[in-house]
Amino acid sequence: MTSGIPTAAISRLVTYLRILEHLEAENVSRTSSNDLAERASVTAFQVRKDLAYFGRFGTRGMGYTVPVLKRELVRVLGLNQTWNVVIVGVGRLGQAIANYPAASDYQFTYVGLFDVNPDLIGQEVRGLTVQHISELPAFARTTRIDMGFLAVPPDRAQDAAQSLADAGVRGILNFAPIVIQPRTHDTDAGPDLSPEWRGVTIENVDFLAGMKRLAFYILNPHLQHIQTEE
Amino acid sequence: MTSGIPTAAISRLVTYLRILEHLEAENVSRTSSNDLAERASVTAFQVRKDLAYFGRFGTRGMGYTVPVLKRELVRVLGLNQTWNVVIVGVGRLGQAIANYPAASDYQFTYVGLFDVNPDLIGQEVRGLTVQHISELPAFARTTRIDMGFLAVPPDRAQDAAQSLADAGVRGILNFAPIVIQPRTHDTDAGPDLSPEWRGVTIENVDFLAGMKRLAFYILNPHLQHIQTEE
Repeated sequence: MTSGIPTAAISRLVTYLRILEHLEAENVSRTSSNDLAERASVTAFQVRKDLAYFGRFGTRGMGYTVPVLKRELVRVLGLNQTWNVVIVGVGRLGQAIANYPAASDYQFTYVGLFDVNPDLIGQEVRGLTVQHISELPAFARTTRIDMGFLAVPPDRAQDAAQSLADAGVRGILNFAPIVIQPRTHDTDAGPDLSPEWRGVTIENVDFLAGMKRLAFYILNPHLQHIQTEE
Repeated sequence: MTSGIPTAAISRLVTYLRILEHLEAENVSRTSSNDLAERASVTAFQVRKDLAYFGRFGTRGMGYTVPVLKRELVRVLGLNQTWNVVIVGVGRLGQAIANYPAASDYQFTYVGLFDVNPDLIGQEVRGLTVQHISELPAFARTTRIDMGFLAVPPDRAQDAAQSLADAGVRGILNFAPIVIQPRTHDTDAGPDLSPEWRGVTIENVDFLAGMKRLAFYILNPHLQHIQTEE
């Protein structure tokens, strides 16, 4: 057992935040670890443990104030600051991402759109002109890019990810159904991560994961909403 | 603690399956709980526990045969059978879903597309003609529908979900950033689920979850890839 914060806890924080936003929209002002646990399909112990990684947010026996806990989770997740985003791949999926309604609730700001398709380059999407991916290095010299969203076909994803790393982008959200392999170079001590990939975070969005979970739960309806210690 | 299979275990099965597909694509024939654990950022104990819910797939000390374990997980998740799917909402996101490349690896078959936008109705997308949502009940009488994918704007999602439930659809994958509220009716004993919602599974796809996790890991790069007991 390694000390630290498990990746699953971060995913759950995202879930708690979504629940708090929902409660706030319904003008619910207070919640509890039991209430959050039930809505997130985990145990109350798990909720308290996840939150405890980041501080003390509630009062024992009193639960949590919805807007306060929401604000704290927004801060922990870094969603109270501006994130400059480029989208690589401006087909249907890239355009769906650029136009997704709730993205503007946070400070994700699309600053550039890139593709290789001549039919798309020069077109305007959401107020931005689609540029050829070869323009990315020049663009990155004049505009801060915090994240790149990869919405290209699977056979283009590896090259497009390399373009983002080469341009100095530190975070990649990959929607393509492949695993991005950061470039390595051989050293006397074995393969070593290429400098442009050091410190780069890659998050994968499994576009099909929801379909697969749904198939399982349709087949096993009695297993829904089981809350258990993990 | 309730006995049963936690929802997070099902999410992890989906992750293990994705890893096994990747290994198979790279012609790797054997794996182990340690290997799967490292790739999934969980502990080997967690991998063995998750798999043990569904049977014995490996040989102690020998690990797992990649194609065998993959085939078993496909079976457990119900992905070896055909799923007839309708998409409600055929804007950018609905079209992106209909055309997502890897969906055809499984037997998700799109049988109908529905919208309310007169500009879309009658158009052909992926070989299917977009129909008005009011046609759904008649369509459901002649075609088996296993799942409905909801890709409508947030203010349309609740009504569209109700249309799916009314049409007898048993599983809904909701891409809209709202929580679907199944209809209830009042009884002497309190509110009761309306009959059309009994046994209906709703899975939510948080389209923004990846962006939020990415923000966290860009801010906290030292926390990446920590494996810990949950």
